[in-house]
Amino acid sequence: MSKIIRLLSVAAIAGIYSSSAPAEPIVLKDMGSFHIGGKIFKIEGQPVETVKFTPNGVPAKIDPNGEYAIEQMYVQYFIPQDQKGALPLLLWHGGGLTGVTYETTPDGREGWLNYFLRKGWPVYNSDAVERGRAGWPATTPSPWMGKPVLVTAANAYERFRIGGDKSWNDDPEKRKLLPGNQFPADSIEQFAKQFSPRWTTTDEPVMQAYLQLVDKVCPCVLLVHSQSGKFGFQAAQMRPDKIKALVAVEPAAVGNDQDVAMLKDVPTLMVYGDYIEQDSRWPKIRATGAQFAEAIRKAGGKVDEVDLPKVGIKGNSHMVMMDRNNMQVADLINNWLGEQGLYR
Amino acid sequence: MSKIIRLLSVAAIAGIYSSSAPAEPIVLKDMGSFHIGGKIFKIEGQPVETVKFTPNGVPAKIDPNGEYAIEQMYVQYFIPQDQKGALPLLLWHGGGLTGVTYETTPDGREGWLNYFLRKGWPVYNSDAVERGRAGWPATTPSPWMGKPVLVTAANAYERFRIGGDKSWNDDPEKRKLLPGNQFPADSIEQFAKQFSPRWTTTDEPVMQAYLQLVDKVCPCVLLVHSQSGKFGFQAAQMRPDKIKALVAVEPAAVGNDQDVAMLKDVPTLMVYGDYIEQDSRWPKIRATGAQFAEAIRKAGGKVDEVDLPKVGIKGNSHMVMMDRNNMQVADLINNWLGEQGLYR
Repeated sequence: MSKIIRLLSVAAIAGIYSSSAPAEPIVLKDMGSFHIGGKIFKIEGQPVETVKFTPNGVPAKIDPNGEYAIEQMYVQYFIPQDQKGALPLLLWHGGGLTGVTYETTPDGREGWLNYFLRKGWPVYNSDAVERGRAGWPATTPSPWMGKPVLVTAANAYERFRIGGDKSWNDDPEKRKLLPGNQFPADSIEQFAKQFSPRWTTTDEPVMQAYLQLVDKVCPCVLLVHSQSGKFGFQAAQMRPDKIKALVAVEPAAVGNDQDVAMLKDVPTLMVYGDYIEQDSRWPKIRATGAQFAEAIRKAGGKVDEVDLPKVGIKGNSHMVMMDRNNMQVADLINNWLGEQGLYR
Repeated sequence: MSKIIRLLSVAAIAGIYSSSAPAEPIVLKDMGSFHIGGKIFKIEGQPVETVKFTPNGVPAKIDPNGEYAIEQMYVQYFIPQDQKGALPLLLWHGGGLTGVTYETTPDGREGWLNYFLRKGWPVYNSDAVERGRAGWPATTPSPWMGKPVLVTAANAYERFRIGGDKSWNDDPEKRKLLPGNQFPADSIEQFAKQFSPRWTTTDEPVMQAYLQLVDKVCPCVLLVHSQSGKFGFQAAQMRPDKIKALVAVEPAAVGNDQDVAMLKDVPTLMVYGDYIEQDSRWPKIRATGAQFAEAIRKAGGKVDEVDLPKVGIKGNSHMVMMDRNNMQVADLINNWLGEQGLYR
């Protein structure tokens, strides 16, 4: 692969793990949630239904005609009392997942939400349009084309570089974990409980809601993962004055090639885990990321690409924030943000 | 209506409002989330599909056959540093909604989650099976009968006693708000963004996941609303040693009549809002609650029923925890829990 790996000064910390759950309390000035974005979707001409919401309940007339709220997203925020991050930090999850990605890991350790809060960042963790607490339009007709996809534990195990291609077996004893893998693979069934159905035709409303979030709470730092790599780069291209730094963790897709110049003042960190070369899809995804990074650099921008194994951090799956060394990678990100002058 | 209204001593505080968002920080010993319950659902004999998860993405083979995690629920917990509630407090939401019910109100005020945290309760706020971050099984075939129902803003406006029957108009100026109503009706469209599709055939898996939650985190205090009234009373009937108090806010359904004696050692508070007599469905729902309460008392149990208007708290809709006087009602509940010896 013809890509430039810039060895960051933060690589020096690669050997230092954060300890597990610190005893220090999390002190919040405020916490709460809101929905943002979306539109009214009007249904007409459907018959009125009588619905018993519980088996012994009192029947209610439900008129399916009328105005539905659709295509909104959900955001939960936590504002630390002692703020050390210069700006709000927005966490955007990957495809088929929700903001749960950043909470407790499937095997019960603290996730990046707690990490960044403890470090003093105001954190906005969200569920994209269609997923989790964002809700979805169970209307007839549907506003969206196609049908939602839900994946199996097996699919995630193989596609997220926990095991490799064809590594799954329903018998846990017979699964082929990639050697040295840091994902808590014994908790793969617990991870599968986090999976959310997703449409593949909703990029436009997802992006629109994200932009409304950016317009509400930014300037900010944006941390994206996998599918939201695309949304993060595009949001930065459309709101370059509001995204003061972009951290793309294993972005599955990137921004628009023709608008790379819009990113020249958005310092960007791209982080990739292990086992990429031996995967059936990831070499191409990684190369696309490298090409996009190089195009930004040619347009005068600053992009740091970190392939974790090359800085001594080995064994990371696609779900870096859940891996056993998740805090080590979080430290790397936080140090990089410090180098951008965004953390005191 | 032939119901006994027991005037609680807490009625004395009816005139005292909590002030808006206190300046005191929320100090947490821990926070996190987990999924619990559910089962494996196996799909066989379906064709393999090729899915592009993003328009320019690398195509992935998706084999829909295999094992899906279904019927789990989602729980987010917050443990205060200075604990004043004697036990964990579990918040269970109503039908077509999620744990967002207890977070920030649709017009941006603090909800009961923050209230009880600030009061020193360890709080477990959850999304029931099928809703929000619990996920739902978008499989072919579906494990569940029937189709999910999503309601309109109009339906909630009329059915939740914000306006009365046939009070909605798409033009906000022409809606007929019930006089003195405390719901932030200008934010009804924002409230509609919280709505979640619901099946009417999932009571059994919902109950099973709730029981697993009870077995994991209780003994506890249980606070339920609307649809979850049924789940709360039934959980207490099945785990009377683990539910040390039950607060049922506008329960839409109750427990099993034949098992009322199981509730004799579970002190229970039932809270109802305003406008019940003039509604098309609520007089019957209220009467069912009163009959159940009386049956528990006859079996030797203790149930306090509070119709808020009769203790001087007027204007409450079905969504008591979002109404403008939500903190006044929370105070009433917290004081009642203190009277049960569960709050210091």
